[in-house]
Amino acid sequence: MIDSIFSHRSIRKYKNQKIDEASLNLILEAASRASTTGNMQVYSVVATQDEALKEQLWEAHFKQDMVKQAPLVLTFVADFNRFNKWCEDRKAVPGYDNFLSFYTASIDALLAAQNAALQAEDLGLGICYLGTTTYMAKRIIEILNLPKGVVPVTTIVVGHPDETPALTDRLPLEGVIHHETYQDYTKASIDRIYEEREQSELTQQLLKENQKETLAQIFTDNRYTKKDNVTFSKMLLEVLEEQGFMNHTMS
Amino acid sequence: MIDSIFSHRSIRKYKNQKIDEASLNLILEAASRASTTGNMQVYSVVATQDEALKEQLWEAHFKQDMVKQAPLVLTFVADFNRFNKWCEDRKAVPGYDNFLSFYTASIDALLAAQNAALQAEDLGLGICYLGTTTYMAKRIIEILNLPKGVVPVTTIVVGHPDETPALTDRLPLEGVIHHETYQDYTKASIDRIYEEREQSELTQQLLKENQKETLAQIFTDNRYTKKDNVTFSKMLLEVLEEQGFMNHTMS
Repeated sequence: MIDSIFSHRSIRKYKNQKIDEASLNLILEAASRASTTGNMQVYSVVATQDEALKEQLWEAHFKQDMVKQAPLVLTFVADFNRFNKWCEDRKAVPGYDNFLSFYTASIDALLAAQNAALQAEDLGLGICYLGTTTYMAKRIIEILNLPKGVVPVTTIVVGHPDETPALTDRLPLEGVIHHETYQDYTKASIDRIYEEREQSELTQQLLKENQKETLAQIFTDNRYTKKDNVTFSKMLLEVLEEQGFMNHTMS
Repeated sequence: MIDSIFSHRSIRKYKNQKIDEASLNLILEAASRASTTGNMQVYSVVATQDEALKEQLWEAHFKQDMVKQAPLVLTFVADFNRFNKWCEDRKAVPGYDNFLSFYTASIDALLAAQNAALQAEDLGLGICYLGTTTYMAKRIIEILNLPKGVVPVTTIVVGHPDETPALTDRLPLEGVIHHETYQDYTKASIDRIYEEREQSELTQQLLKENQKETLAQIFTDNRYTKKDNVTFSKMLLEVLEEQGFMNHTMS
């Protein structure tokens, strides 16, 4: 049993303490051992520790304090730039300027990210994923100087934890696992799956604070709104176009 | 140091031996502990062990033998269906029929997949990722009965290894890691990064077998061609449309 899988919690407060070099190298090496499509390794990792750069990233990531506090910000990027350059320099004509290639490279980047996250936690460090990476891809491309063929996919901050939160609740296993084929949800199974979460004290508190009738409304009306999703969808699709991943002609 | 990260190799031959239930549960539990956007858990895992279904999946996955051989096929799917049903049943109006939501759910699915893969390996089992999942998404949707709001992202086969392959070579760490910001590659750095791989015996053998001048040409001309990539890109974008992830109007 892998302890860092079962004891994972997102850490949002960090001590003012650097990551030592041996730990950093082990984390990066772990990332590079992840499965990768056809062993192409079509991802890169940008390890940012410089305070001025971290301040820019903090601003891009909706000014979440942990980005400034944590000594290390790892941005995982889908990267066909290196592979394309290699091809072009080897009399090979790359055909990776399309959506499938972007998605393939995203898969590579995410498996590498999870390896890095787990290895960091195994060293006693804390991590937190930043979902803002895809919302703010355009700005992150500027800050990190990402060339064509490269798109940021996810980010983890890494550091020495300065809090010890409880394990986050998860839906019961039956809520996310299907045996043999997908068994669609019924009103009754939805009720059962969400029951514990909906009746928790945390939920009651959130309902009061947000003056909402249901927990679901806090998600749709406050946290992940249609307006934001549509806006960020358009921005992300524009980024894919600009970074050269939306050419679907054969010429 | 997490052993299963550093000893990972893809296993393509499996013994005719089931996965015991305790192991299966631990693997699925590990998947469910992965980080997830806003704790929404917008993914599902379909665990297929039935021989007839596995035969259909084998056919979809380009008839790769390991899909039939391995006793367990785990398909990780981006899933807003459950979340949408929950919202609709709780007087909340979900706005997750867009590209950003699909991509967010893909991230969730992939982090869960890597947790499952590592936990399986920690139990002494072997795994292999199937990149064919995105190429054949439409067919997999049919086989696994995936409803609207659900798209297959990746698949791992899991079983008792019947081979002990060497560790796969990887590019040197400097090839995939960038410090502070992205440092673009030069002709010289590309040469250096790919040198060991290009000079390996395996590469020399592949060049002979494929009658190609460079290793890169084997990728562009044989393994991952522009023609296939464009075809599969269009198919995948169609699937996103059909599964309800391409509505970017505000109404």
